[in-house]
Amino acid sequence: MSTLILTNIGELTTNVEALGDDPADPTGLIRGAAVAIVDGRIAWVGRAADRPGSLADVSAVVDAEGRAVIPGFVDSHTHLVFAGDRADEFAARMAGQPYVAGGIRRTVAATRAASDDELRARLRGFVDEMHRQGTTTFEVKTGYDLTVDGEARLARLAREVTDEVTFLGAHVVPDEFAGDRDAYIDLVCGPMLDAVLPFARWIDVFCERGAFTPAESRRILLAGIDAGLLPRLHANQLGHGRGARLAAELDVISVDHCTYLDEEDVRLLAASDVVVTLLPGVEFSTRQPYPDARRLIDAGVSVALASDCNPGTSFTSSLPLMVALAVREMGMTVAEAVWAATAGGARALRRSDVGSLALGARGDLVLLDAPTRTHLAYRPGVPLVRAVYRGGELIA
Amino acid sequence: MSTLILTNIGELTTNVEALGDDPADPTGLIRGAAVAIVDGRIAWVGRAADRPGSLADVSAVVDAEGRAVIPGFVDSHTHLVFAGDRADEFAARMAGQPYVAGGIRRTVAATRAASDDELRARLRGFVDEMHRQGTTTFEVKTGYDLTVDGEARLARLAREVTDEVTFLGAHVVPDEFAGDRDAYIDLVCGPMLDAVLPFARWIDVFCERGAFTPAESRRILLAGIDAGLLPRLHANQLGHGRGARLAAELDVISVDHCTYLDEEDVRLLAASDVVVTLLPGVEFSTRQPYPDARRLIDAGVSVALASDCNPGTSFTSSLPLMVALAVREMGMTVAEAVWAATAGGARALRRSDVGSLALGARGDLVLLDAPTRTHLAYRPGVPLVRAVYRGGELIA
Ligand SMILES: [Zn+2]
Ligand SMILES: [Zn+2]
Repeated sequence: MSTLILTNIGELTTNVEALGDDPADPTGLIRGAAVAIVDGRIAWVGRAADRPGSLADVSAVVDAEGRAVIPGFVDSHTHLVFAGDRADEFAARMAGQPYVAGGIRRTVAATRAASDDELRARLRGFVDEMHRQGTTTFEVKTGYDLTVDGEARLARLAREVTDEVTFLGAHVVPDEFAGDRDAYIDLVCGPMLDAVLPFARWIDVFCERGAFTPAESRRILLAGIDAGLLPRLHANQLGHGRGARLAAELDVISVDHCTYLDEEDVRLLAASDVVVTLLPGVEFSTRQPYPDARRLIDAGVSVALASDCNPGTSFTSSLPLMVALAVREMGMTVAEAVWAATAGGARALRRSDVGSLALGARGDLVLLDAPTRTHLAYRPGVPLVRAVYRGGELIA
Repeated sequence: MSTLILTNIGELTTNVEALGDDPADPTGLIRGAAVAIVDGRIAWVGRAADRPGSLADVSAVVDAEGRAVIPGFVDSHTHLVFAGDRADEFAARMAGQPYVAGGIRRTVAATRAASDDELRARLRGFVDEMHRQGTTTFEVKTGYDLTVDGEARLARLAREVTDEVTFLGAHVVPDEFAGDRDAYIDLVCGPMLDAVLPFARWIDVFCERGAFTPAESRRILLAGIDAGLLPRLHANQLGHGRGARLAAELDVISVDHCTYLDEEDVRLLAASDVVVTLLPGVEFSTRQPYPDARRLIDAGVSVALASDCNPGTSFTSSLPLMVALAVREMGMTVAEAVWAATAGGARALRRSDVGSLALGARGDLVLLDAPTRTHLAYRPGVPLVRAVYRGGELIA
């Protein structure tokens, strides 16, 4: 048995209402707190002064010296198995050229040409980068190969670094099927799905003009659900559309982007259990208007924040910046933004063992170099992650 | 003699036109470059293949492995000698409460109450934080004490960490002079100026509604100039005003903020040698509209980017984020933004030994964890600073 104690925590975000100083605070904030992790799991959380003397085999006591601690970030939306980058396309877009979904095909070509070891090295670099920024759980999508063997390869490589692997064969229709979309969709719903299945937990579709229609998306999601995968959806990123309604109708776990929603979309999402995952890195990097998180939260929707880290539209892995953007641009309070990037992400991945400091949850903590979590938005861009624990182990 | 060589640099920003691959590029970009630093100074810059064999006493060769290198950032505008923070005020403002200049007085009270050692520890923490983000030269202003002895103390502490100390006794009129502004201005122009003089290189005024009028600003700047200080000015941050014209008229070295400029302001600034220093951290943190850098650059104005790091309106020290915001929000190209945060900052501090890799310049380099400088904007929020050299010494 090994016990790690963090004490003298200026403010601890637990995301457990019952634990907080204020019983109405969904982030369960405790001032002057301590937390104990036994064998990698949260074993005790409370005021430092109330720490039980009975905690055995204390292997390390970390003095937070009044700093803030939050649960590890849960990044529920990334596309991190790929080769190359598209810095030139980014620079051109900033100079006024609009985003078109076709850019994905450049990354597909580079990824197909890369060896396993190249992709693995790149992926491990991103994992380190995420850890250093406080992310302790993350999802990774396939979608940059779009062949049967290739998508299985990407899923296998992703599975080496996370349990949360998403099959996104329906990212775009690859050039070789440009004349026969239906044949590609047959492939996705049949042999490709079968090949990816051993590695994937999720099925996803890019439902957008230029990618897949709502009808196509429905067919692909249903095929994935039928095979035992959990559904999630990219929708309403570039304009209004019927993707968000499809998400509500199919009761997917998470619908992601949702930059353009009408009142009926919001009503349907609020009436469902669907998490809406907002990805402000995309709006930052494509100079699109930001989604209105305030409207969603006020309507009762569960909101998550994620990075969408990918080489085309959001090449950032920084959840601290997503929190700052959510507060600056999307009408969220700091408490809502931190919740969305931790507990919200966990909900979007249907995970109860991460994203909060409930008893028994995995011991994933971020010690900030700041006295409050507000500093994540108040000090944008400054690397404020001082130490990161995952399952009680120091990983950054 | 000690010689440090960085080689195999994917792209090297020199900010020396004559050194670049393209003679019309003001950032003097060289692809496949190397740089040699001898006894802390730039001794040779060029294509890696052309590196002379004659470089003696090579103490270290660093292989950049194709990564990008830029000159160290020059942050020409910070307010880093203070105590306390104003996270609560930030959160309230994000919830809709407007910024008023009076918040400065809270920091004045906290700073007056702090010991030298408390301020010194805080300041050294910020210096480390800046180094880790690639800043190798920075200015620090006084202005959070507003008494004769207190301003001298802040200048003395600032001088322990930088040569670029600015006397900003004219930050706001302190409460104890609320009934007699002129008496405070007499103090600033007389005994306070005398007391700060041994430590300061610059005189500055916060010329804004709620702080000092253009006429008051003129009197204070002229007193500083008379005492041998170089003039700079905060102006046109919160609304249109005559501050920018005063800057042009007095030919100050830099006029900072300039968020609100009319056509005549731009014309006068373009006709002058005044550098316009833009501070997008302020607009981020106060949710104000960003300044139009494109208009200034197109008019021929020299633009610098700085952080304005201070606890009230921009508590960020991140020049990488300022570059990203300049590209996303202010119409600058990546090349212009990187130039503005390096050579532009140096110009705003009238320094020729930093901000570029001219022969003889101080050996200040930032090795990025990225193949191009574009990644500073393309990967917002991601800590991309891999190594930082100041005078040829590794400092982060
Ligand atoms: Zn995505
Ligand atoms: Zn300032």
